[in-house]
Amino acid sequence: MFQTFEVTARPEQGPPRLAALRAVLVAEGLDGFFVPRADAHQGEYVAAHDERLAWLTGFTGSAGFCIALKDVAGVFIDGRYRTQVKSQVAADYTPVPWPDVKPGAWLREQLPQGGVVGFDPWLHTAGQLETLRKDLDGSGIDMRPVANLVDRIWEDQPTPPMEPARVHPLEFAGESHESKRQRLGKALAKARHRSAVITLPDSVCWLLNIRGADIPRNPIAQGFAVLTDTGLVHLFMASEKLEDVRDHLGPEVTVHAPEHLVNFVSGLEGPVRLDKGSVPVAIADAAGTATVWGDEPCALPKARKNEAEIAGSAAAHLRDGAAVVELLAWLDDQASGTLTETQVVTKLEAQRRNDNALQDISFETIAGTGPHGAIMHYRVTEETDATLEDGHLIVLDSGGQYLDGTTDITRTIAIGTPPEEAAQAFTRVLQGMIGMSRLRWPAGLAGRDIEAIGRLPLWLAGQDFDHGLGHGVGAYLSVHEGPQRLSRISHVPIEPGMILSNEPGYYREGAFGIRIENLVVAQEAQPLEGGDDHRAMLDWRTLTFAPIDRRLVVSGMLTPAERDWLNSYHAEVAEKIGPRLSPAAKTWLDTATAPI
Amino acid sequence: MFQTFEVTARPEQGPPRLAALRAVLVAEGLDGFFVPRADAHQGEYVAAHDERLAWLTGFTGSAGFCIALKDVAGVFIDGRYRTQVKSQVAADYTPVPWPDVKPGAWLREQLPQGGVVGFDPWLHTAGQLETLRKDLDGSGIDMRPVANLVDRIWEDQPTPPMEPARVHPLEFAGESHESKRQRLGKALAKARHRSAVITLPDSVCWLLNIRGADIPRNPIAQGFAVLTDTGLVHLFMASEKLEDVRDHLGPEVTVHAPEHLVNFVSGLEGPVRLDKGSVPVAIADAAGTATVWGDEPCALPKARKNEAEIAGSAAAHLRDGAAVVELLAWLDDQASGTLTETQVVTKLEAQRRNDNALQDISFETIAGTGPHGAIMHYRVTEETDATLEDGHLIVLDSGGQYLDGTTDITRTIAIGTPPEEAAQAFTRVLQGMIGMSRLRWPAGLAGRDIEAIGRLPLWLAGQDFDHGLGHGVGAYLSVHEGPQRLSRISHVPIEPGMILSNEPGYYREGAFGIRIENLVVAQEAQPLEGGDDHRAMLDWRTLTFAPIDRRLVVSGMLTPAERDWLNSYHAEVAEKIGPRLSPAAKTWLDTATAPI
Repeated sequence: MFQTFEVTARPEQGPPRLAALRAVLVAEGLDGFFVPRADAHQGEYVAAHDERLAWLTGFTGSAGFCIALKDVAGVFIDGRYRTQVKSQVAADYTPVPWPDVKPGAWLREQLPQGGVVGFDPWLHTAGQLETLRKDLDGSGIDMRPVANLVDRIWEDQPTPPMEPARVHPLEFAGESHESKRQRLGKALAKARHRSAVITLPDSVCWLLNIRGADIPRNPIAQGFAVLTDTGLVHLFMASEKLEDVRDHLGPEVTVHAPEHLVNFVSGLEGPVRLDKGSVPVAIADAAGTATVWGDEPCALPKARKNEAEIAGSAAAHLRDGAAVVELLAWLDDQASGTLTETQVVTKLEAQRRNDNALQDISFETIAGTGPHGAIMHYRVTEETDATLEDGHLIVLDSGGQYLDGTTDITRTIAIGTPPEEAAQAFTRVLQGMIGMSRLRWPAGLAGRDIEAIGRLPLWLAGQDFDHGLGHGVGAYLSVHEGPQRLSRISHVPIEPGMILSNEPGYYREGAFGIRIENLVVAQEAQPLEGGDDHRAMLDWRTLTFAPIDRRLVVSGMLTPAERDWLNSYHAEVAEKIGPRLSPAAKTWLDTATAPI
Repeated sequence: MFQTFEVTARPEQGPPRLAALRAVLVAEGLDGFFVPRADAHQGEYVAAHDERLAWLTGFTGSAGFCIALKDVAGVFIDGRYRTQVKSQVAADYTPVPWPDVKPGAWLREQLPQGGVVGFDPWLHTAGQLETLRKDLDGSGIDMRPVANLVDRIWEDQPTPPMEPARVHPLEFAGESHESKRQRLGKALAKARHRSAVITLPDSVCWLLNIRGADIPRNPIAQGFAVLTDTGLVHLFMASEKLEDVRDHLGPEVTVHAPEHLVNFVSGLEGPVRLDKGSVPVAIADAAGTATVWGDEPCALPKARKNEAEIAGSAAAHLRDGAAVVELLAWLDDQASGTLTETQVVTKLEAQRRNDNALQDISFETIAGTGPHGAIMHYRVTEETDATLEDGHLIVLDSGGQYLDGTTDITRTIAIGTPPEEAAQAFTRVLQGMIGMSRLRWPAGLAGRDIEAIGRLPLWLAGQDFDHGLGHGVGAYLSVHEGPQRLSRISHVPIEPGMILSNEPGYYREGAFGIRIENLVVAQEAQPLEGGDDHRAMLDWRTLTFAPIDRRLVVSGMLTPAERDWLNSYHAEVAEKIGPRLSPAAKTWLDTATAPI
């Protein structure tokens, strides 16, 4: 399924749907209904069945929510989507700047004492509801769980996804699900928790070494699991999906119909561990007084990749790197003014699809040329599709889902002759990327403690960028995986085996954008002559191999150490990727990786 | 009062005092008594009257506590003091490694169900007691507030300090206490708090523009204050101290006897804001249900220095710099093997005392030569006093309390010819110090977000140091002032006007120590050509001016930007400090600040 470029929002569909929703509201004795973008699994992507926010309002961003009241319907969107929302929703909807305006404060303004707002308890986490109720404290406004009202009026709502689950081979998983279940069960027992409910599908899939295709761009099978302190798993997933994995799951994984989950959880003896940040209200209510709040039991074990997962990711990156290099060589061969963004996206995806192990792209490719490059989450459509012109930079951020690993790479390429100002900014971004790549740091630090290293060259020039330096990445799972991040908001220590992106950028609104991204995996650093004997330190192994556009590097700005890093990285690219290329691309790569 | 070097601990005094305490324990029906190092104001230094921990146990460190039970007496000390405690306390005391072993866990091990441990409710904060009670939850062990048992057996206990308070002139304070009270009162009103209790004496002194001499090295008058939402202050301080400041305080500051505080607080209408981290249990109990936990109202306003405070600090630093340079010139003139650490300390203090504005040193000077340099909080005594030998480095960390500002400076000096390994480490420490000095960063970041910049050169060599990069410093107040810090534990955004130390170091146990420290003040950065127009950024203005030992700089390791910084800093030192020196020191400084 190739990426498509159609404009999906149809603002004119919003008003009649809102009217229908309001009719149901009134009939139910409610003053409003809360329509989040999330599904019950709180993932970044949702199935067509769960696209309630887009269906109701027209807004297709990856974050946001609507609160529909009788006389006003607020569409809450963050800074990224303030422009987009205006073109996607009809005038009947009121965009609300979020998180500046919080839903609790907005409801206090809009509703009188005694107002009642309905919500679907499967689509909100216990933590979200707690915050909302706290913000409503003393207002007399009540949040009432109800069956989803959008589902009642959405006549042609797609059915929930029902794609078959597949076994994720031990060769790539590196640890059997028996071993994972035992290990995590023991950790539960040690914490004196009898069981834990797991609601994140990538955690369920990781734990049981299965993968699926319920959601675009994410190889997951949707379902819930209950892990016991003896390492048994109760899997709540439609049995239709499980035909190919029954034997693999074995007798210690009991399959239940998803609709039995609430009853099952109500019957659990406590303490039952729930993660406040991901568990739906419906499940937390079912666990009731047996609940003990705690960390999602798979989160950290899943983030610490084992040797097989790292080897798989490294192998996937070499094939992915070859696809990217073929694209870059082709791109350089086209004359300025002849290509558009969608052509680049389609060509890149075709290159990736030459690999049989590719299952999907890992997210919608971002291909922003000229001013589009400054839109951090730009998704090209037929309407915005722009031509690559001389003097443009194009930001190309893309990735693949391979059976052995997930990739995510950004390169920024000069079309023709780049402006000097852009080349200087590019060089600073590169210096930040190199600074983080070369880093060695004492074990125990979190993303927040080291992120500054990747921004320093920009800071010294009075510049910065408004996104994190990096995010965690799964092993043939989600391309955005927590809890590790290279970000000011991350206090989770980085541990050996964690895969993260290293992607500084720079964005000049209306002019150009720059981002350079490699994936890296944390590892124990080799001791250095003269270093502290007693001090455990970590460093990075780079996974991504593709050239960095030398035409955008202002060589005189680099320190000798930075230049050495770049030349040695390019030598490695040539050595690892060169043999995988077509003759034309190989020739191109030799030039692209020549020492600077 | 010059720094003294006597060995104050007399381990043999401990056992009879412990026996006397145990006799009182039993008479009171207690199983133990908690003896912290703190006084009711939780400061870093305490008056002789409050030296209960040292009196009872012999241990003189600046942090730690004793829990005396009937058959065991634990002295809890952190990593810095594990060696020192052994020489200071008798065998009747058991050193306990803290915070590895927490008092709650230790009590659970030592006491049966139903055990009762007494504590003085003035010497523990509400937050500390909450944590301790939580750790004891379910153990059946009770913490019981009692009148201090040590005071009952300490026959020649010094009386509480009763030094006169003085007016801190508006010229240095920069804002009248009327204005401060109004400003902070309005902030309370905005938070809908009726009043706040202030228990930190540096906050009380800052708020009322007074200073005192109750505590060594800190120009504070001990007392408590209640600030109302209308900007009135009730000051609980012995009236004997206040004779010289009565007129200055005026009619909106009502003076009460300290012993009336509890009654007064019990009578306050709520909400009364208390800071859990500093308020004694006795006061929190008095406020009872009127309590609302919140930030200490003076903490941030005190940390953001105004123009007069910054100008005062800058002026004090120039005079202090001249004193330091005189010492360094003199030091260089002595032959290796002729000086001891105490001679250096005394000479440095004498240089500072040539300045009439010097009120005291700001802390006990650290002068550690050779292996002593690796002891981060080394305090030289007659017993440890070592000779400065050829090949040694000496770490000299000192400061002064001047009427117009507080200083804190560290220089590491080569005695004779330094080992190459030490010079390389020195250069890395210097590179970290320069990296932080040159930094420009987006407004809103905390110490945690930028501290890595000062460690980076060491990290890349497999090295690091085990203390924060910097601490806040007061304006003729405490040399360690919160809440701002350049440290992994600090989440408080750095704001313009905050003064911090920038002091990376390196310590090779048994061999040498290195630390270089300048004070810097955060300020709004001037825009740069090509920088982001919309982005508010901060940078540092350096306050400390004294040369950095060029003989320890491996010039080839510096980048051009680092070399430029050092040369331009040294040029400024020569320009600002040179005219203040004796002819001999001026000649020495010209050489010491020559370009590298």
